[in-house]
Amino acid sequence: MSQRQVAAGIDFGGTSVKMALVDEGGAVLARASFPTHEAAHQEAWLERVEAEIRSLMDKVNQSWDCLAGVGVGVPGFVDFEKGYIYDLTNVEGWTSVHLAESLSDRFHLPAYVDNDVNAMALGECRYGAGRVYRDAVFVTLGTGVGGGIVLDRHLYRGAYSMAGEIGHVSIDMDGVCVPQGKGGLEQYIGNRQIVQRVVNALEEGRKSSIRETVKGEISQITVKLIGEAARNGDLLGLETFDYIAECLATAFASVTYLLQPEVFIVGGGIALNGAILFDPLERHLQERLSPYFSERIAIRPAELGNDAGVIGNASLVWSNILAHHDEP
Amino acid sequence: MSQRQVAAGIDFGGTSVKMALVDEGGAVLARASFPTHEAAHQEAWLERVEAEIRSLMDKVNQSWDCLAGVGVGVPGFVDFEKGYIYDLTNVEGWTSVHLAESLSDRFHLPAYVDNDVNAMALGECRYGAGRVYRDAVFVTLGTGVGGGIVLDRHLYRGAYSMAGEIGHVSIDMDGVCVPQGKGGLEQYIGNRQIVQRVVNALEEGRKSSIRETVKGEISQITVKLIGEAARNGDLLGLETFDYIAECLATAFASVTYLLQPEVFIVGGGIALNGAILFDPLERHLQERLSPYFSERIAIRPAELGNDAGVIGNASLVWSNILAHHDEP
Repeated sequence: MSQRQVAAGIDFGGTSVKMALVDEGGAVLARASFPTHEAAHQEAWLERVEAEIRSLMDKVNQSWDCLAGVGVGVPGFVDFEKGYIYDLTNVEGWTSVHLAESLSDRFHLPAYVDNDVNAMALGECRYGAGRVYRDAVFVTLGTGVGGGIVLDRHLYRGAYSMAGEIGHVSIDMDGVCVPQGKGGLEQYIGNRQIVQRVVNALEEGRKSSIRETVKGEISQITVKLIGEAARNGDLLGLETFDYIAECLATAFASVTYLLQPEVFIVGGGIALNGAILFDPLERHLQERLSPYFSERIAIRPAELGNDAGVIGNASLVWSNILAHHDEP
Repeated sequence: MSQRQVAAGIDFGGTSVKMALVDEGGAVLARASFPTHEAAHQEAWLERVEAEIRSLMDKVNQSWDCLAGVGVGVPGFVDFEKGYIYDLTNVEGWTSVHLAESLSDRFHLPAYVDNDVNAMALGECRYGAGRVYRDAVFVTLGTGVGGGIVLDRHLYRGAYSMAGEIGHVSIDMDGVCVPQGKGGLEQYIGNRQIVQRVVNALEEGRKSSIRETVKGEISQITVKLIGEAARNGDLLGLETFDYIAECLATAFASVTYLLQPEVFIVGGGIALNGAILFDPLERHLQERLSPYFSERIAIRPAELGNDAGVIGNASLVWSNILAHHDEP
């Protein structure tokens, strides 16, 4: 093992910046976070990040020399090779930023910047549900549907560093129209869309325990509540999860025919619901594939939970430093 | 240049077996073919293929020592690494066959077996429309819709050698149901489906020059005739090509979001129709992508025409022999 035993993983979100020191085995040694608005501008952000990392290194009794590098995951389009941010979705003032260069100039260390979901995919594949696979497609379900593709244990970024956007894969050529296209997966199973589907059913008079749970306050319905209802046998909840599974299976079937990975890894809040999601997902995917493909594909829930981001970002460092030596 | 200057490319189709000697630059030096039914069984097929290759080598005044290897493209599922045929779609007696081994035992030369469309994709990418690109997705339109993915100038085969089946990418989650899934692209733009669409329109009373061309004999309608009508301004023909383009663009948008290749290469008979296909295809694809993707994707017609198969099969030899030395 190298002398530089820890990497800093930084999950740069619109609401908070989460950070952790992570060792080469993927173990989180220490954590910190700050609200994004406290240091949203570039110079302030860099200063704050440096201060937090120094404080974390102190906390684990490691000298600065033990830091191997810094990996940042950002919510937006990135040129990984150049460490360049085209634009962030929810943070102003981060258009056309050479962030990796700024970080490595400041720290005199290797620094990497990637799309946040790509970093999570890499983390899950090195240290989580994907560690026994070479070729995996990672999907995270939340406000939108994010994706990352790992081929031969490396992130696949495509010709211009933006590949893996499974949320925009179309499941209906005449479907919901948004600037990104027509019928994109996340227009059907993003959190807001799922809630809206249930709200519509309730407004049409469907009976469901969900109505009682929110005491008739339909605006209080969340995907989490729908999941709880479904796990307790609520029919509308179960139907909703079957629909989510069917949409997801349609996209997974397309991805399987194109890429034939070994496994899909499903993360994000919805994926915590277990069998009510994964059973129909398996079934619908099997129905939508010929045996040559259905016999050779697995689906696994993500394993890293809330740490997926920071571990993934730190794994950008390990993955790229180790790439110059041996791959595990 | 090596002493072994020619490779034999063999396109093993259900109707005919086409063969050619191809040099390292992708030039076809000599061609032969025989009807598949004349030597459909394995031993007869191997004998006939050997005889044809010997005769072709004589024809170009080359000794057997100049043959670098043999590449075969077959219509079916193949394990490329093992040179193993799971099954052929239209030829009996070719289930579970170690064809590459049989060929290399017989010829004492490197032999490769791949899916026919994969081989065409490799040929187009090395010697045809894709030669200036590193990352390309090849699609061939015919009875079905075949696909092949070339990443970093190498065929991408997926975890189990069957990737690239773009014809089964779903464009409608509730669409046409076949054993391969629901709403697969080729269920909409396979030749038979296109003709049926026009026949249905005519039977509903649509006016079109196509009706006159076939003198009312609706069973005589072909995709070629529909293309001719469209190029002459026939409205039904043009609408049909717009529909083909829209279906194709839906799948291309999904593939672009997932893989972000540099280019789509479109081959097969329909692709010979030029602007009536490619203009709406460009337009629909642009409409279905966000600028980060639409600004970075090209569509090109295939260039190798009827030779795509044999050149592609021969390029399996060059690609794999050269992989041990330098890549172009």
